[in-house]
Amino acid sequence: ARIVTLPGDGVGPEVTDAAVAVLQAVAERSGHTFAFASHLIGGCAIDATGEPLPAATLEACKNADAVFLGAVGGPKWSDPHAKVRPEQGLLALRAALGVFANLRPLQVHPALASLSPLKNEKLKHVDVLFVRELTGGAYFGAKTRTVDAATDECKYTVAEVERVTRRAFELARERRQHVTSVDKANVLETSRLWRSTVTRIAAEYPDVKLEHQLVDSMAMLLLTQPGRYDVVVTENLFGDILTDEAAALAGSLGLLPSASLGVGKVGLYEPIHGSAPDIAGQNVANPLGAILSGALLLRHSLGLEIEATTIEAAVAHVLTNGPHSRDIGGKASTSEMCDAVIAALD
Amino acid sequence: ARIVTLPGDGVGPEVTDAAVAVLQAVAERSGHTFAFASHLIGGCAIDATGEPLPAATLEACKNADAVFLGAVGGPKWSDPHAKVRPEQGLLALRAALGVFANLRPLQVHPALASLSPLKNEKLKHVDVLFVRELTGGAYFGAKTRTVDAATDECKYTVAEVERVTRRAFELARERRQHVTSVDKANVLETSRLWRSTVTRIAAEYPDVKLEHQLVDSMAMLLLTQPGRYDVVVTENLFGDILTDEAAALAGSLGLLPSASLGVGKVGLYEPIHGSAPDIAGQNVANPLGAILSGALLLRHSLGLEIEATTIEAAVAHVLTNGPHSRDIGGKASTSEMCDAVIAALD
Ligand SMILES: CC(C)[C@H](C(=O)O)[C@@H](O)C(=O)O
Ligand SMILES: CC(C)[C@H](C(=O)O)[C@@H](O)C(=O)O
Repeated sequence: ARIVTLPGDGVGPEVTDAAVAVLQAVAERSGHTFAFASHLIGGCAIDATGEPLPAATLEACKNADAVFLGAVGGPKWSDPHAKVRPEQGLLALRAALGVFANLRPLQVHPALASLSPLKNEKLKHVDVLFVRELTGGAYFGAKTRTVDAATDECKYTVAEVERVTRRAFELARERRQHVTSVDKANVLETSRLWRSTVTRIAAEYPDVKLEHQLVDSMAMLLLTQPGRYDVVVTENLFGDILTDEAAALAGSLGLLPSASLGVGKVGLYEPIHGSAPDIAGQNVANPLGAILSGALLLRHSLGLEIEATTIEAAVAHVLTNGPHSRDIGGKASTSEMCDAVIAALD
Repeated sequence: ARIVTLPGDGVGPEVTDAAVAVLQAVAERSGHTFAFASHLIGGCAIDATGEPLPAATLEACKNADAVFLGAVGGPKWSDPHAKVRPEQGLLALRAALGVFANLRPLQVHPALASLSPLKNEKLKHVDVLFVRELTGGAYFGAKTRTVDAATDECKYTVAEVERVTRRAFELARERRQHVTSVDKANVLETSRLWRSTVTRIAAEYPDVKLEHQLVDSMAMLLLTQPGRYDVVVTENLFGDILTDEAAALAGSLGLLPSASLGVGKVGLYEPIHGSAPDIAGQNVANPLGAILSGALLLRHSLGLEIEATTIEAAVAHVLTNGPHSRDIGGKASTSEMCDAVIAALD
């Protein structure tokens, strides 16, 4: 299998190295062969080529079986007046690969409950899979800017809502048969289209229960009743906000993986943390979110369920027994964490 | 002073009655005269007149010194295909009164810390004032809908951002001199206009520290470091989501007041909870958010700071000593809570 890696900026290269090392270790143990090719994206790509998503990178991604991304962005490229920004590279890649469904699983490992801002009793049974629409909405709508004003258009087509809804319901079938759809249908026209489309598609899945929530209520319910949710499906911007909020529950952003899937098999896999420029290059970033993203890559793009589960079990072992990186209360370096996961594979 | 009350739907009338009773009690004790006039808004207005904001209501509000609102909405009027919706009445009123700055103070009373989903150590020093832009953004932008697609436009002018920013900085001067501005400047054009405008206006307030946060990060930071924030200023939709998230920290939505202010003196005051149709008419809703909104009304529209503080002290006394309504772990009814606050005024 051909895997393109896009280490990107900040801690991106360090956590990508860790994820690749674990995938290589799994390949050796299972007799599979993974061919890795690294390409530029984000700030480092702007520095090298002037473009946040160089044509060579996009071409390589389109021809790969799966794409692994570290992180993009940093203060060096954050001038609000800049013509090109690292994030544009990531958004253009998501659009070009057509990965409309961003899966963000959230569980709280018992060993880390003490790090969560939430009370322990709230964390029981927390096992949520967010399905965030990733290639529509205000992220990709028309924008205007004059001296006096600016606009962003949020647009959704029925077809865009249908496909991500189906993905959510199919995932719910494999889980606890419950979908919560989040919108702001009391104010937004796109949300009313969202709600009526989700309701219609839900009828195709009579075995799955559907519930609608307004995004403001949901922001509260994620804290007061986090154990109630199974699959949560929502549009791009609401998903961005709610998944970061939910990530806080896990005790550290550094732990959480994501998978972005489209119609084809090519998926884009990335930890949900950002480039963390303050700790870049110090070998202290937590690589577990990246490593777990590698597990999702094996599962969703390569169909290697057993190997994915092996990685997840190894990560759980490290969370239970240590070592722990700084963000989760320990002193282990990025590479020590990576080595511990590899050791736990056997 | 002339105060228009808009009890609205669900528990709105019950909590409005409580707030009015407390304001009357304060008037008697302080020698002021408040003339109350009640008008229709929301679902009850649709039922009576076909309009969520009848002309007579709007006229009365414009001629008042202050407007008190209970809550609007409910399942009866929630059909996504309905032509008129209760929320339209509220949005039209906000726009017509020009109340562009929605103030939502958040503190966690020690007696209620056990009800918060957050660990106690996180709740220390939580004292945040959200300033949510209330008359712009996607709430009021152009909307389109066809069979296949829908759009919402989010628009901000520089002038709209300037005025709410100035309000936030002026409020921060009276508090801890710290403003956090929340946007999504790495993706949205309106957020880039927001950020550059806030940065420019901040230079007029060299005594106040400004920090920018992305909305996704902020959704997390409100949980991991809630004690860090003083004044948080943001656009309409982000403010809707973040203030509901933050409200969860207080242990109950029923406690929290809001004030919506514009250029003139007329303000709109409402508890942040909704119409809670499941408990409407049962005399069990917590009236403290409504009563505290009455205190904000005295402070911001009538200039009665001492009287406002008296109400706030009485509410704090009830929170400390009871009685407590169901949402905060007790059994007291709406009217018992109201009576207890009035008794604590002396
Ligand atoms: C970097 C940024 C553009 C991105 C987003 O908003 O989608 C990030 O926050 C994410 O959630 O993947
Ligand atoms: C009722 C609804 C339109 C309203 C809003 O979204 O502004 C409410 O959620 C609020 O926060 O006041």
